[in-house]
Amino acid sequence: MLTPKQIDDVIAFHGHLCPGLTFGMRVGDWVLHEFGRAEDEEIVAVVETDMCSVDAIQFLTGCTFGKGNFIFLDYGKNAYSFFRRSDGKNVRLTTRGGLLHDLREEQNQLAKDDSEERKNIQQKMIEKILSADFEEIFAIAPAQIPMPETAKIHVSIRCEQCGEMVMSTRIEIIDGKQLCIPCRKK
Amino acid sequence: MLTPKQIDDVIAFHGHLCPGLTFGMRVGDWVLHEFGRAEDEEIVAVVETDMCSVDAIQFLTGCTFGKGNFIFLDYGKNAYSFFRRSDGKNVRLTTRGGLLHDLREEQNQLAKDDSEERKNIQQKMIEKILSADFEEIFAIAPAQIPMPETAKIHVSIRCEQCGEMVMSTRIEIIDGKQLCIPCRKK
Repeated sequence: MLTPKQIDDVIAFHGHLCPGLTFGMRVGDWVLHEFGRAEDEEIVAVVETDMCSVDAIQFLTGCTFGKGNFIFLDYGKNAYSFFRRSDGKNVRLTTRGGLLHDLREEQNQLAKDDSEERKNIQQKMIEKILSADFEEIFAIAPAQIPMPETAKIHVSIRCEQCGEMVMSTRIEIIDGKQLCIPCRKK
Repeated sequence: MLTPKQIDDVIAFHGHLCPGLTFGMRVGDWVLHEFGRAEDEEIVAVVETDMCSVDAIQFLTGCTFGKGNFIFLDYGKNAYSFFRRSDGKNVRLTTRGGLLHDLREEQNQLAKDDSEERKNIQQKMIEKILSADFEEIFAIAPAQIPMPETAKIHVSIRCEQCGEMVMSTRIEIIDGKQLCIPCRKK
């Protein structure tokens, strides 16, 4: 179980509390217990959505966009894979769906300007996500892809068109000139 | 100037202190003063790198991957654009380069196993990044792209192959079947 401080810190990072973030808290809490936390790249997350949940996952698990151990696949699925480098342990968690079905129906029937009742329903959703059994929310299965490679550091070289420094792997030589991606598009 | 607590919290989020994160702290600090913080989507960041710096930017500015106001362009450039929705204020910050040139040269001449001296040089880099004038590190210019649109929410529908729920915009109908991206690739 997350401590009240952990929950407050996740909300502060994301900026507000919402059902999506709460799903991510459940994932993060589960991963902390099953895989530990990534101070460096010990754990890798592969997320198939960019919805609010992934902010809680970044904050709690230490799999963050800037550390190279948070990989986004733009598949539009509430699915989250985790890999532990030390022993290859891996998992893919997918939302079963259905948990919030009745509350969503209720929400859909609200008048657009009924923000008070909308808030009440959101609060009920959050409570439901926090109190449900983990496996009622998520299906647990092995990862479907191999463990991603570690992040690489590359030297930077100058684009001969715009003059900006660019990671060498993002430069291509066109007509004898080293060009960055935006200059190649022009 | 960031408070010691803000700096500690950024390091805790990222997992460790490094020169890349420190560059991001300078950006985040500057944006907080010039643009404010995004509790929701008031500010949008467009980053052209996925290196450590962007974790400090996420943490400090509230432009986070899960909120849809943190957009990654994989250009391999230490360039960061920010947009304020209320008034269209915008900026693109690019690293001038050169600040750490001498220390990088020193680092390159170290024996691979001299981890003590490597740490010393890293510490010197961090101090240099923290103490330099902002405009000594970054060039400040208008953004080169229009303000990104706000994040959209779409309904989910079921992939008829794998049975998983998928955001409707990531589904395509192939031979009369609604398929998700991984199932289409198979």
